[in-house]
Amino acid sequence: MKISKIGLFGKFRDSSVAPVMDRVRALLEARGVRVLLGSTTSAEIDGERIDEQHHPLDQLIDVAMVVGGDGTMLNAARILCTHGVPMVGVNLGRLGFLTDIPQGDLETNLDALLDGRFSVENRTLLKTTVLKDDVSIYEGVSLNDAVIAKGNTGRLIEFETRIDGRFVSHTRSDGIIIATPTGSTAYSLSSGGPIVYPTLSVLSIAPICPHTLSNRPIIISDDAVVDICAFRTPETRAILSLDGLIVHQLSGEETLRLTRADRKLSMIRIDPHDHFEVLRTKLGWG
Amino acid sequence: MKISKIGLFGKFRDSSVAPVMDRVRALLEARGVRVLLGSTTSAEIDGERIDEQHHPLDQLIDVAMVVGGDGTMLNAARILCTHGVPMVGVNLGRLGFLTDIPQGDLETNLDALLDGRFSVENRTLLKTTVLKDDVSIYEGVSLNDAVIAKGNTGRLIEFETRIDGRFVSHTRSDGIIIATPTGSTAYSLSSGGPIVYPTLSVLSIAPICPHTLSNRPIIISDDAVVDICAFRTPETRAILSLDGLIVHQLSGEETLRLTRADRKLSMIRIDPHDHFEVLRTKLGWG
Amino acid sequence: MKISKIGLFGKFRDSSVAPVMDRVRALLEARGVRVLLGSTTSAEIDGERIDEQHHPLDQLIDVAMVVGGDGTMLNAARILCTHGVPMVGVNLGRLGFLTDIPQGDLETNLDALLDGRFSVENRTLLKTTVLKDDVSIYEGVSLNDAVIAKGNTGRLIEFETRIDGRFVSHTRSDGIIIATPTGSTAYSLSSGGPIVYPTLSVLSIAPICPHTLSNRPIIISDDAVVDICAFRTPETRAILSLDGLIVHQLSGEETLRLTRADRKLSMIRIDPHDHFEVLRTKLGWG
Amino acid sequence: MKISKIGLFGKFRDSSVAPVMDRVRALLEARGVRVLLGSTTSAEIDGERIDEQHHPLDQLIDVAMVVGGDGTMLNAARILCTHGVPMVGVNLGRLGFLTDIPQGDLETNLDALLDGRFSVENRTLLKTTVLKDDVSIYEGVSLNDAVIAKGNTGRLIEFETRIDGRFVSHTRSDGIIIATPTGSTAYSLSSGGPIVYPTLSVLSIAPICPHTLSNRPIIISDDAVVDICAFRTPETRAILSLDGLIVHQLSGEETLRLTRADRKLSMIRIDPHDHFEVLRTKLGWG
Repeated sequence: MKISKIGLFGKFRDSSVAPVMDRVRALLEARGVRVLLGSTTSAEIDGERIDEQHHPLDQLIDVAMVVGGDGTMLNAARILCTHGVPMVGVNLGRLGFLTDIPQGDLETNLDALLDGRFSVENRTLLKTTVLKDDVSIYEGVSLNDAVIAKGNTGRLIEFETRIDGRFVSHTRSDGIIIATPTGSTAYSLSSGGPIVYPTLSVLSIAPICPHTLSNRPIIISDDAVVDICAFRTPETRAILSLDGLIVHQLSGEETLRLTRADRKLSMIRIDPHDHFEVLRTKLGWG
Repeated sequence: MKISKIGLFGKFRDSSVAPVMDRVRALLEARGVRVLLGSTTSAEIDGERIDEQHHPLDQLIDVAMVVGGDGTMLNAARILCTHGVPMVGVNLGRLGFLTDIPQGDLETNLDALLDGRFSVENRTLLKTTVLKDDVSIYEGVSLNDAVIAKGNTGRLIEFETRIDGRFVSHTRSDGIIIATPTGSTAYSLSSGGPIVYPTLSVLSIAPICPHTLSNRPIIISDDAVVDICAFRTPETRAILSLDGLIVHQLSGEETLRLTRADRKLSMIRIDPHDHFEVLRTKLGWG
Repeated sequence: MKISKIGLFGKFRDSSVAPVMDRVRALLEARGVRVLLGSTTSAEIDGERIDEQHHPLDQLIDVAMVVGGDGTMLNAARILCTHGVPMVGVNLGRLGFLTDIPQGDLETNLDALLDGRFSVENRTLLKTTVLKDDVSIYEGVSLNDAVIAKGNTGRLIEFETRIDGRFVSHTRSDGIIIATPTGSTAYSLSSGGPIVYPTLSVLSIAPICPHTLSNRPIIISDDAVVDICAFRTPETRAILSLDGLIVHQLSGEETLRLTRADRKLSMIRIDPHDHFEVLRTKLGWG
Repeated sequence: MKISKIGLFGKFRDSSVAPVMDRVRALLEARGVRVLLGSTTSAEIDGERIDEQHHPLDQLIDVAMVVGGDGTMLNAARILCTHGVPMVGVNLGRLGFLTDIPQGDLETNLDALLDGRFSVENRTLLKTTVLKDDVSIYEGVSLNDAVIAKGNTGRLIEFETRIDGRFVSHTRSDGIIIATPTGSTAYSLSSGGPIVYPTLSVLSIAPICPHTLSNRPIIISDDAVVDICAFRTPETRAILSLDGLIVHQLSGEETLRLTRADRKLSMIRIDPHDHFEVLRTKLGWG
């Protein structure tokens, strides 16, 4: 894989990343790479933009380089996954699970990238479909998770979970998290879910503060079809979030269908990448 | 304590409890007790009402008998606690932690009540004050808990906890629960909090899905003053709930001050009452 | 698959199961099946024995039917797995995760079995090798789990975990559980591990009461090689248990290597079998 | 309180602490304090010993200064508590919950101690009595906890818990921890118990890896009498540990009775002492 065109995706609408963006661009251009700015980048940052209107993304750039944190990675992932463009992250702040290149060590890492000293991990994406009377009224893709949760109420929500058409449980809780392996170290972990190695073909289903204490996280195949049917109650409104963004308000008449998305996300891992080292650092393991 | 006047508090605005209310009233009147209907009772249920406008509650009734579930008990508790009227619950559905009299065994229990075969437990109530620029802008009392939680957003909230003026922790989480011993078997339990014996003079503070996994429930004296300061962030709104009802929307400039309320709630426990037996049944202990 | 010879494996050395054994044998013989008694069966129970000395098990019986509980199934599994004989369980007491045929409904289920109305699930087995100076000094196979735990001491043990040669963590805890999906609903669940769907190709690694609170269960591929190196300390002795039986005392100089066993265990599931229904019943989900 | 005689208690039988011991002694003697060596101190460390044979401890020393870690503190606490001698710890390694004086800042802290700039916390101690046929066959005191746990077996133990004579639960688990507030941040925390503020008058009861997932930690008054009755089973032996030391092997015919000890332990806290700061540091709160 020869890398000659890179799209730089800046932290969402944040012009304060301009200095780092400029530095990355200069370093890349000095190495003969053509640099274009991606759509998440603040309008106040100068540079030639990717013309997504007229050309498919994968014809314009070989790699997307995200400058921000894990949040910007999640944003960019949704854009990139449909085009199969591999992504790599430059980490502005604290070490991230998704961003691989520390800001303080740009040159070595860019050299490694351009020399091909990296591997590509294919990460499972989650497709969430909101069905009403068996008709899809919303569809979205996420890299970390889909969360059905109580909205602006102090009340539990009630829902039924089915896997491949079979009834699993009736749950009363604050909500439920369906996480990819990538998302297992995000919200799912706070809710008692296990750490799942990122390249496994499984999904994790974890209830949030369940009323029944034996309602525990479940690991299933990512071939499975998960249906969540939230119950309508007078005072309760449930909300659907994908990767932390609210995308749909549920009335209680919908079924949420969760499956593996058709495409995977290609993540570039600069050599040597060690997932366990990131875990140890992020989780403070002794 | 001679019981000659009882206030019946029906399930909040629910006329379907009329048959049970009528039966309880008939049984009480047959035993020479005067029965008045309390303010939670549905307007469609007939009977003489308590005239709270002109007389303090404790002059009108000796005991408040709640016909409903734990939710109705929580509602009635807020009304009754300021008057020192003891309460007892008739349980319509599943066994409750607060309701003591099963619907199927009314007569024996009413006899026990009127014969004085009961004890009175004093339960701690929680006072929550919302302070803005050191001025109180809201004050409320709850029997179970006060919850500061993220509202209708997919995002964590951030807040600082202080106990008796000393900094305890900076937390990023879905929220935080401050529970009385009574509330320890409610939401707090779902969130990982311990079961606290109901008459202890302690409060329990439990984070909801904390980002930092070592943020664990803390038990403190109910003499303590707990201050929660939620941080303002562009996209986050936190909400304050007392006993499951949203009472305040937080902008991030407020401090929440939690203390033991001045008054306790008097709960009547018909003999023999066994808290551990209720726990075993409700939690399915073998 | 034509079933004409069945081995009956009675509850380990327990003669009290004789009446059920006799009844199962009578029902099978009435249906033209030849019945032999397996090695776990109490010597006090009459009947022709499997002659394991002179013939491989899979030439003598088509199916092993275990009469006991999940414990007897675990015992029999170790014997059967090397021969590829499928097993099915008759459940004497409480519903089991492994035993499929309730004692009260023998005839219908035996008819289904002999008519071929069943499916066969291949369950992953775990191979545990104890290495000293890179030489194997013990090897064992288990269906549920391998557990390295502190022995008869009040002290933590310390160990290092490596996956495919890469360092994962240094842990101080009561021990560590490496569980197959089958074992995920056994000890691993009590220790905070997730429920894993039984046919997935993963292993679960869960620390037991870890000193560091962020040491959480990890799900990895069952292709992985897990090495646990327990540290020698003056007062600490660690023990290795497979499926709840102690098999080895560790001095601290050994490495434990855990991998998927070469063979799988064939479990017969009489139609219709619903794993989630068993979960709901066993875990008391509402 | 005038401090003129201090007992130095070195890390249990460990001569490597001699240099620190010598330095502490020199600093104290330079400040006019008479220094004696306590019984935990290694025989290889020179100095005048406390003559416990002929004089009660509280007549020989005003304060016990422990040089070691939390383990040495636990050892010394058992000796000191019967004499009412207050203790203070010099921390050799990592920050401890019990040791207050960091090795690197000896002089300032010794000055504060001798100037009376400290407070004294009274910590609850736990008394454990082993009863057989209603007769006490063992009695011990602990500062952190009493643990009944499975011994050198891979099996669960079964026991019944009673509080003030009332049946609480029948539990199958790896064991059970009864912890003082001081012990709440030790083993109990690893087992899912809450953090209890050190001066509260409560005990915490936490099961270790319970088979029933709803068996959760319970907080009770330290006025209560807790009885644990471990069941005899053919293969199971339970062990009793106090503060991490095995003190008794249980046959299954005993009842363990746990109560608050008559005496409290006096812990010196050099000003300013902040328990929450220690928690933040030890638990890695952000």
